[in-house]
Amino acid sequence: MKLIVDCFGGDKSPAANVEGAVLALKEHDDLSLILTGDETIIKNELDRLGYTGSKLEIVHAPEVITGEDKPTDAIRLKKESSMIKAIAMLRKDPEISGVISTGATGALIAAATLRIGRIRGIRRPAFCPLLPTMDGGIVGICDSGANVDITPEMLLHQAILGSAYLKNVYGVKNPRVALLNVGVESEKGDDLRKKAYPMLGACDSINFVGNMESRDLLSGKYDLVVCDGFSGNVLVKTTEGTALELLKKLKKDIYSKTIYKIGALLMKKMFMEEKEFMNYHNYGGSVLLGCEKTIVKGHGSSDANAVRICIDQAYKMSAGAMNAEIEKALEELKG
Amino acid sequence: MKLIVDCFGGDKSPAANVEGAVLALKEHDDLSLILTGDETIIKNELDRLGYTGSKLEIVHAPEVITGEDKPTDAIRLKKESSMIKAIAMLRKDPEISGVISTGATGALIAAATLRIGRIRGIRRPAFCPLLPTMDGGIVGICDSGANVDITPEMLLHQAILGSAYLKNVYGVKNPRVALLNVGVESEKGDDLRKKAYPMLGACDSINFVGNMESRDLLSGKYDLVVCDGFSGNVLVKTTEGTALELLKKLKKDIYSKTIYKIGALLMKKMFMEEKEFMNYHNYGGSVLLGCEKTIVKGHGSSDANAVRICIDQAYKMSAGAMNAEIEKALEELKG
Repeated sequence: MKLIVDCFGGDKSPAANVEGAVLALKEHDDLSLILTGDETIIKNELDRLGYTGSKLEIVHAPEVITGEDKPTDAIRLKKESSMIKAIAMLRKDPEISGVISTGATGALIAAATLRIGRIRGIRRPAFCPLLPTMDGGIVGICDSGANVDITPEMLLHQAILGSAYLKNVYGVKNPRVALLNVGVESEKGDDLRKKAYPMLGACDSINFVGNMESRDLLSGKYDLVVCDGFSGNVLVKTTEGTALELLKKLKKDIYSKTIYKIGALLMKKMFMEEKEFMNYHNYGGSVLLGCEKTIVKGHGSSDANAVRICIDQAYKMSAGAMNAEIEKALEELKG
Repeated sequence: MKLIVDCFGGDKSPAANVEGAVLALKEHDDLSLILTGDETIIKNELDRLGYTGSKLEIVHAPEVITGEDKPTDAIRLKKESSMIKAIAMLRKDPEISGVISTGATGALIAAATLRIGRIRGIRRPAFCPLLPTMDGGIVGICDSGANVDITPEMLLHQAILGSAYLKNVYGVKNPRVALLNVGVESEKGDDLRKKAYPMLGACDSINFVGNMESRDLLSGKYDLVVCDGFSGNVLVKTTEGTALELLKKLKKDIYSKTIYKIGALLMKKMFMEEKEFMNYHNYGGSVLLGCEKTIVKGHGSSDANAVRICIDQAYKMSAGAMNAEIEKALEELKG
């Protein structure tokens, strides 16, 4: 298995990306990685880590894409960037299975959509990040921002994509798929949701369980939530934002009184566990589903461990029969 | 000032509604209230509370609207319900300024839209609930679910409605208005947001500060967030749901070990304050803006104190110059 790690563009790049790559190689014996980016800087990082193995190859790419670059310009004008070079190699080389990047989201979507083929029948690839549920499980959200203008058919495709992902990469048996809506009753929502609901209900390849109100996202009652990219983006960022703000508030309040500090000291282990539980880096990147090859977008703030998890996701996505299952489900839709 | 309290339809109705009404009367000397619902039951509640004043009038309405009633059917077929009777009286009697209800949302929107006149120029009334921010302030969300299919002009109107509300009822000087979007850059979002952004920027009656990502909702950097009712609903319910789920998890984890229980005991006062801070009942109901008269929709789970706060909101909305300010802003839009 050969994957590419785009080593630039994240907040902690390239150190986190290079170290994440080295960590991932220890986990998978049959994995080899290509690192794209400034060769000298990457070599320095590898020296710093004391890496002496032979499963890492560096491909020099001196440019970096930033959030300021317009996505289509980035593809056209920054061909020597670590991201675009990675995507170009993924496109050309049949032996390379996927790309992991912590760089600019817009550019990555554009490059993947324009340069990497889509699964036949899929109009637009969709993001599917994961969040932890309160019963110790996970829930996928598809789409979380790749497609803000959307059709009912695309929602159905997202249900198929996300279900196949959860089955093949996380071993979820029969993923319970819900439609994000303003109420649970079947007739709720805007035109888009009203049209999508019966289409989801009629699809045999997925296990549609009905509408979900956003307050139940973390309840553990659902494995996958399908939504347009706009409200999916709101759903994911509100959850992350609320959890972070509350943790910050707790911390501030604890420091306001000595007795609270003493109490918190006794609960230190628990608070550390809560923090880890809410750390979205632990749940991997936002995979881009619907492409012929694997694309994993890590958080911009990814540390080495987060990059390692993204590489592991890409490994499992590429190794499994995920895309074959998606193609089969799309075929059945036609019949 | 005369207001109507619909005493049925909430989870804790009629006890919470009747007690809330009695509490509200103690706060405002010039307030009198009409209670709609089953007369015998309401009288029993008043006896239980030992109320002997003269500022409460009961109007008998034996029927109750539930979540199962289709909104348009509710209006047509349940004319003797506590909610529809309240709206009918509000429509007819020029001395009555507003209605407070904890009943079914859909029926209330339909009744208000069809029976109560709108401010000239407003196509559809919009909900504006409030959430607490981490710096001790509040943030309004307009719309949170009344209008799921929407136009850029409606977003602009919601900015005007919400700004006037925050100014007149909460004394916010120059409310900072943000557009909910998937990124802060001006060109972000779907067609709706791309069209609305310059319209908001060009409007002199509001203080538009740009796009807001949902993760910053509680940051205290914004006073009002405008959004379509679908994503606004997701925004509010995700915030409430995440906060509740995290509190539940904390509680469960505390009970898992004796040392945590001891620590929590030392922090008891702090945890109680956190719980109160996150209790959305403390921030009042979701007011319906854009109608000629005042409509306040309390949470279905409202207790007596929450109902009291809703009545206080209705009092302040009706007493102020809010609607006059909205009309002026709409006039200026035309010019």
